[in-house]
Amino acid sequence: MLTLYMSPGSSSMAPHIALHEIGAPFEAKWISFGRREQRTPDYLALNPEGKVPALVIDDGVLTEVAAVLYYLARAFPAAGLLPAGDLRAEAEVISWMSFIASTVHPARRAGREPSIAAFEIAEDRLGDREWAVGSDYSIADIHLFRLFWRFVDTLHPPASDYPNLSAHYDRMMAREAVKKTLAAESAVGYHLPR
Amino acid sequence: MLTLYMSPGSSSMAPHIALHEIGAPFEAKWISFGRREQRTPDYLALNPEGKVPALVIDDGVLTEVAAVLYYLARAFPAAGLLPAGDLRAEAEVISWMSFIASTVHPARRAGREPSIAAFEIAEDRLGDREWAVGSDYSIADIHLFRLFWRFVDTLHPPASDYPNLSAHYDRMMAREAVKKTLAAESAVGYHLPR
Repeated sequence: MLTLYMSPGSSSMAPHIALHEIGAPFEAKWISFGRREQRTPDYLALNPEGKVPALVIDDGVLTEVAAVLYYLARAFPAAGLLPAGDLRAEAEVISWMSFIASTVHPARRAGREPSIAAFEIAEDRLGDREWAVGSDYSIADIHLFRLFWRFVDTLHPPASDYPNLSAHYDRMMAREAVKKTLAAESAVGYHLPR
Repeated sequence: MLTLYMSPGSSSMAPHIALHEIGAPFEAKWISFGRREQRTPDYLALNPEGKVPALVIDDGVLTEVAAVLYYLARAFPAAGLLPAGDLRAEAEVISWMSFIASTVHPARRAGREPSIAAFEIAEDRLGDREWAVGSDYSIADIHLFRLFWRFVDTLHPPASDYPNLSAHYDRMMAREAVKKTLAAESAVGYHLPR
């Protein structure tokens, strides 16, 4: 059994979506940032960095969004969350996730202007492709969506400023796995710093 | 033929080391940050972000250290730069690279205090393991080394503050691929902001 530690609306939303895409049974463990549950001794024993997500698998704990997504995609290949048999496309997925983690995510924490600059790069990088890596949906789309969802939710940019990302957002919002995830997380209640 | 665009002493050092580990022929293209060659129209056509590394492969260009390392490790499995047949260990490698790109690298740019805090987390995470993912050397070690090498080179922390990272650094410095890379890059000349 997989167990995912997460906090509603946070980075852990990406692996949460992936688990719904896969359809595998999993246990959801909710961590309240408001009650600082990510700093309890029990949680720090699981993830010394005190961050979500943390995915408990049979033989250990995985941290970092990119790694949890990669593990799920490879462990459940039938879900088609990584381009199969195409190393270049697979490396492009890793490149997107690294770009998101190293450029987009820190910019979001740095405030409005750096966020806008980072999403302008993401907008150009996505271009008019259906999905991040061409025509194949992948974990890179899930990771990208979670950051843009948060940007939209907090800063309400006009969709016309980001036509490519906004169209991608709409495609993501139409997916059953995304609807299930957002419904489950909003039912628990978002407690993020705005 | 592989072509790696790099700048001496920069993030591109990691894939440069990987290419020497693999022993594959490659063309080195040096980009001078001092002459702002990363902002020329030709280079921006190759990598619109104006960053190194960029690896030109048969059917495209790969960017982001983690993705270039992943591609090289998978394309040349005989070099043993990814744990073979062990998905959990492979996901741990991705986790390390994401942690380095999202936590350690931005901290380095933010200055001395954030760098020290980030390397303290890395020190604890490494623990007394020989390599980042247990006993198997991998691309995660190469990525970790490049950041710590830069930290040592610029801030000269006492080795006793980071016993695990310092022992890892010594193991890396003893590798032929690392010696070759450092010799080649210092021959071109480091031109990094200090």
